[in-house]
Amino acid sequence: MLKILTAGESHGKALVGILSGFPAGFKINIKDINKELKKRQSFFGRGKRSKDIESDKVEILSGVRNNVTLGSPITFLIKNVDFKIFSQKPDNLTPISVPRPGHADLAGSLKFGFKDIRNVLERASARETAIRVCIGTLCKQFLKEFKIEIFSYVIRIGRINADLKNLDFYERKKKAESSEILCPDKSAEKKMKELILETQKKGNSLGGAFEVVVLGVLPGLGSYTDYFERLDAQLAQSLVSIPSVKGVEIGEAILGSQILGSDFQDPIFYSKKKGFYRKKNYAGGIEGGVSNGAPIILRGYCKPIPSIKIPLDSVNINTKKKEKSSYIRADTCVVPSAALIAESVTAIVILDNFLKKFGSDSFEDIKKNFENYLKRLK
Amino acid sequence: MLKILTAGESHGKALVGILSGFPAGFKINIKDINKELKKRQSFFGRGKRSKDIESDKVEILSGVRNNVTLGSPITFLIKNVDFKIFSQKPDNLTPISVPRPGHADLAGSLKFGFKDIRNVLERASARETAIRVCIGTLCKQFLKEFKIEIFSYVIRIGRINADLKNLDFYERKKKAESSEILCPDKSAEKKMKELILETQKKGNSLGGAFEVVVLGVLPGLGSYTDYFERLDAQLAQSLVSIPSVKGVEIGEAILGSQILGSDFQDPIFYSKKKGFYRKKNYAGGIEGGVSNGAPIILRGYCKPIPSIKIPLDSVNINTKKKEKSSYIRADTCVVPSAALIAESVTAIVILDNFLKKFGSDSFEDIKKNFENYLKRLK
Amino acid sequence: MLKILTAGESHGKALVGILSGFPAGFKINIKDINKELKKRQSFFGRGKRSKDIESDKVEILSGVRNNVTLGSPITFLIKNVDFKIFSQKPDNLTPISVPRPGHADLAGSLKFGFKDIRNVLERASARETAIRVCIGTLCKQFLKEFKIEIFSYVIRIGRINADLKNLDFYERKKKAESSEILCPDKSAEKKMKELILETQKKGNSLGGAFEVVVLGVLPGLGSYTDYFERLDAQLAQSLVSIPSVKGVEIGEAILGSQILGSDFQDPIFYSKKKGFYRKKNYAGGIEGGVSNGAPIILRGYCKPIPSIKIPLDSVNINTKKKEKSSYIRADTCVVPSAALIAESVTAIVILDNFLKKFGSDSFEDIKKNFENYLKRLK
Amino acid sequence: MLKILTAGESHGKALVGILSGFPAGFKINIKDINKELKKRQSFFGRGKRSKDIESDKVEILSGVRNNVTLGSPITFLIKNVDFKIFSQKPDNLTPISVPRPGHADLAGSLKFGFKDIRNVLERASARETAIRVCIGTLCKQFLKEFKIEIFSYVIRIGRINADLKNLDFYERKKKAESSEILCPDKSAEKKMKELILETQKKGNSLGGAFEVVVLGVLPGLGSYTDYFERLDAQLAQSLVSIPSVKGVEIGEAILGSQILGSDFQDPIFYSKKKGFYRKKNYAGGIEGGVSNGAPIILRGYCKPIPSIKIPLDSVNINTKKKEKSSYIRADTCVVPSAALIAESVTAIVILDNFLKKFGSDSFEDIKKNFENYLKRLK
Repeated sequence: MLKILTAGESHGKALVGILSGFPAGFKINIKDINKELKKRQSFFGRGKRSKDIESDKVEILSGVRNNVTLGSPITFLIKNVDFKIFSQKPDNLTPISVPRPGHADLAGSLKFGFKDIRNVLERASARETAIRVCIGTLCKQFLKEFKIEIFSYVIRIGRINADLKNLDFYERKKKAESSEILCPDKSAEKKMKELILETQKKGNSLGGAFEVVVLGVLPGLGSYTDYFERLDAQLAQSLVSIPSVKGVEIGEAILGSQILGSDFQDPIFYSKKKGFYRKKNYAGGIEGGVSNGAPIILRGYCKPIPSIKIPLDSVNINTKKKEKSSYIRADTCVVPSAALIAESVTAIVILDNFLKKFGSDSFEDIKKNFENYLKRLK
Repeated sequence: MLKILTAGESHGKALVGILSGFPAGFKINIKDINKELKKRQSFFGRGKRSKDIESDKVEILSGVRNNVTLGSPITFLIKNVDFKIFSQKPDNLTPISVPRPGHADLAGSLKFGFKDIRNVLERASARETAIRVCIGTLCKQFLKEFKIEIFSYVIRIGRINADLKNLDFYERKKKAESSEILCPDKSAEKKMKELILETQKKGNSLGGAFEVVVLGVLPGLGSYTDYFERLDAQLAQSLVSIPSVKGVEIGEAILGSQILGSDFQDPIFYSKKKGFYRKKNYAGGIEGGVSNGAPIILRGYCKPIPSIKIPLDSVNINTKKKEKSSYIRADTCVVPSAALIAESVTAIVILDNFLKKFGSDSFEDIKKNFENYLKRLK
Repeated sequence: MLKILTAGESHGKALVGILSGFPAGFKINIKDINKELKKRQSFFGRGKRSKDIESDKVEILSGVRNNVTLGSPITFLIKNVDFKIFSQKPDNLTPISVPRPGHADLAGSLKFGFKDIRNVLERASARETAIRVCIGTLCKQFLKEFKIEIFSYVIRIGRINADLKNLDFYERKKKAESSEILCPDKSAEKKMKELILETQKKGNSLGGAFEVVVLGVLPGLGSYTDYFERLDAQLAQSLVSIPSVKGVEIGEAILGSQILGSDFQDPIFYSKKKGFYRKKNYAGGIEGGVSNGAPIILRGYCKPIPSIKIPLDSVNINTKKKEKSSYIRADTCVVPSAALIAESVTAIVILDNFLKKFGSDSFEDIKKNFENYLKRLK
Repeated sequence: MLKILTAGESHGKALVGILSGFPAGFKINIKDINKELKKRQSFFGRGKRSKDIESDKVEILSGVRNNVTLGSPITFLIKNVDFKIFSQKPDNLTPISVPRPGHADLAGSLKFGFKDIRNVLERASARETAIRVCIGTLCKQFLKEFKIEIFSYVIRIGRINADLKNLDFYERKKKAESSEILCPDKSAEKKMKELILETQKKGNSLGGAFEVVVLGVLPGLGSYTDYFERLDAQLAQSLVSIPSVKGVEIGEAILGSQILGSDFQDPIFYSKKKGFYRKKNYAGGIEGGVSNGAPIILRGYCKPIPSIKIPLDSVNINTKKKEKSSYIRADTCVVPSAALIAESVTAIVILDNFLKKFGSDSFEDIKKNFENYLKRLK
């Protein structure tokens, strides 16, 4: 039901996104969106630009009146403070002709037939995700009204893993929120920060892993009836569409690949108060492509940012001669940002499936349809 | 460009799929499709039904004349030999009211409001993938004409991992083809089969992991311009849309989450003969969501089949009383089948992106447009 | 929400359609579908094949159990009784190389690069619409449960126009149903039939016009918020997607192009019983792309069937030499059939927009959501 | 291939559109877009706002560098000069609670549950089309490089019809361009302008009709293989998605509904120079849903603008009491503007189908693929 297009180059005039299909009558919290944008930029490990220069603020150009949605397409705009690099006097800009490994530089230039790689890297930049954070944060706000909560935390930075065995979801959420790298394990956090600092000094970079948790999803979102309606598959696409995220797990997929079926079961229980429920959740809240009412748990694996200060072998796309790829100002570790972005893209998928189930025109109508369904479940 | 719908219940009259948007003028090899269908059913570890009863044969009802495609929608039909269970005398069938954990049984029944879980499990069955194998095999045949080759092999069954370090892709392919469980490591294969037999005897089940490899993809498929066009994200969705596959990696994602950026680089080289090429391939052939000309490497993680002979705690959805879930005839290990299906869903995504780039009406025109592009790349 | 693919050649093995997204828990009336199929074939003015040979019967291959929908994709299949012409011994079939003006013959052959026009005309045939009648009739059955009724009638055959000024909608419906050419004006009907007979004798053909009426649509379907959501635009596409229908009017569009704004108004009234209502309906029930609660009125204009017995100038596509196009068995006048098909394609659009508003999983849930909305409207 | 979202309220901050899927390497002519925007606003018969206040200028925020497209989504932005009415101090704005017949006012308010009709009319305004003119003009520029030309002219204003029998397409185009109401018949133009003036004085409004002509389309765009791919159906949707346009004809649909098949034929001829060609064009350049190489001819029928100074019966949506609907500043006749907009929406559909046939990444590649096809046609 939701239709989304995003646009904008990293140093262009602005990032823009249009969200169509969002219900009418919902009060947007713009401060909250700006807070998320700020978070995305200011985690420990981000580069200078992220922290100092950008300072993203969203402006809403359409679809909202007095902060209440109109059912009309909503336009989000983030102006690029330092856009002049790309747009203003492009003739003065030296073209980039040596592709950086690990980026779209080479593949993109060949695809479109460009001689200046800047034409690729400006759009291929992860800066695009800022707009998806705006859209996703609005989706989160909407879902929250239905007691659906989405949050994330970092579980690995490079070789350091967090130990979360003894923390329930609320503790994880709370502790992550107070962490500069979104990690609920305070002892791991310390080591991770040290590792980041040390890596930063060497001009190197780090990957890692995170989890996204969706609490309060009722059973019945997504579907097994058509393969493209499977909620897990939709979520996998969303997570992998975040730059750096190249792997994804729904529930305990990798553990499951190693153990016996008898050790990978989420038996079903029922109580009047809770309805159907589980004591275990290997499936990560999705069975047969449908949400089953248990927390949805996704894990994203981030490769290290490919831009490092150590020069890399490459080839000039125009001369075809060997050259070292140039270093462009970059982050050391983006895993916490990727986690935050993952919350947003998850929220978009969840809301889309939610609206398919409950209709899409008006917040007030949807609330009633939702209550009908809750009643039916009981 | 490709549009696909699949339909059919596991014990219904037939499985059906319509593929729209496939180019005209291409000669279909139906024997080859039937061979793939047979493979899907007969791997070591599949259950009795798969091997003996089904024996799938595809029938093409439309879109083809004298085995040559017409550009019109192609209908694939696989009759269910034992369809009478579901369709013929449904009144004699005892309703199923105790959901099996790990399946869509409970979530699907709640979603649609069913009292007989048979209404869910018949469609949620992995039997649906047989039709996607038909469609995907046709896509593979088409891509082969452009020297794009897709194959897969098993790298893990339960706790047994294959060791493929010393095998190149062609050896992996060849050895996998001669393996009953699609595993190129003969010594691991032996242990895997023993593990499967042992597990089968106990009525238990096993998961595992596989790799899909796409060779010969030219640079430029997929795009970084829109997040939903990213080739890696599209592939992740496809793989996770296969029942049992709950995790996916593009290239060395998980390794990348643990090591330094400097150790995760695919430097760029050029030679007249090869054009741009890599000596390493951590990225798995996709950078910035675009194919870069290196082999595309995907890894899928399968949970163990949830159906085991050991009774599991569950709840009757109608009486809300505790009951043990019933065991329905099932496989012990489906990892090789999942790998095979993954080849097909990968082929569908690759062809779709290929047609976006080269046009979609006629095989002959596409060949010329493809040659134009190859020339431009040089 | 609804996804539809249709397939099948006119003399192929079968026509097939898959309908995905139809709600679960709805009882299908298959007899009623077959009745519509029969109607489509047997109007006065159809050719011999339509009446005697085809005798279409639908078979449902999936998505339904005990005639109740499962929420899973529904497959409709109509076997072609005389399919052998096309499929069985194609080598014995003389290729067709002279395109008939007015058909896809030439344009289709050039598009796909065919040398035998049979590859085009078999799919370009209006026989495809039989499957859309199956799907649309099911949609009509569903909508009827919400008091939405769709019917059509012929208002023109060639130079003969019906006079319906004194008939209200129910009379039009009733009288059309008892007419061999779906025309409610009995005196016009007589002249139309005479004209058809006379035209048939000369091997000539006739076009005409029809109206589709949708009663009982509540306000709020479709949307002005996105141009592609406009209900009138969606309906226009649907009607023009019927072969022969090359013009469409929503309400009194053509009259409106000729008169003053003051003479083209539907003032708004209100009563407790009726809610908001109109005494006039120039807009045809849709304002700003949204249903307004008044009857939706569409008018379709059909060109005459291009196939006539009088030989026409054409050119052999292979030799490029002048030749007369050959005559293939055809109908004299298909306007009543086009009207019937228009009902079906209209029903598909209306249901799709209905499900967007009220959710799509289960018939029972939708009924409750619908009642919520009705209450809100009051 | 093209994906488009538009956004923006009539008196909001801005109108915005994102166009995704447009090929890279094409030089945009922004002046030409602004010229079209100006034309749209300044035809004889438009209201004061159109002419004086708006004075639209497009700004491109993304997807373009040095005026050359990047293959990335292109953002078009038109600032609303008088946006303060809607957005700035909305609390000071008296709510509108009496819906105007003929607008989305009532249907939209009921759909979304609004109490202030301003929430509807701001987005339902035809001002949205300004963005589609930007997008469509760019598409026209692209198509022109392939010798495809799109233009339009007015054939009716109210009761005055133009007589174009003796003008060929180029004369029509040329004469229309020099007309204040886009009418090529100078004698009719005079009467039309008089009628507009007279109508304006009375506070009344006028509808009319126009034609869109597409010259130079090669055979093979659109398809008969899937009903939703039919070019005529896509064009019908596009035209009816323009506010005021409520009827559409492809070729001579209405004439065809009245005459014999033998009088409605476009026989096929061939010459070495022209290839296949026609001397008549009843079909309007599309047969079986596929372009046949002849000029595509579309006719749009506009109802009169519903807003007139004469008060109309209506009902307060909040009090449910009878009230006269208020008059909001409006145009007398928008037929020439609708024609211009129709050119743009037509260009979008034609380009979309063009890219499906020839690939979509790069202007240079597309040119080569196009030449391949031209060669094949010969």
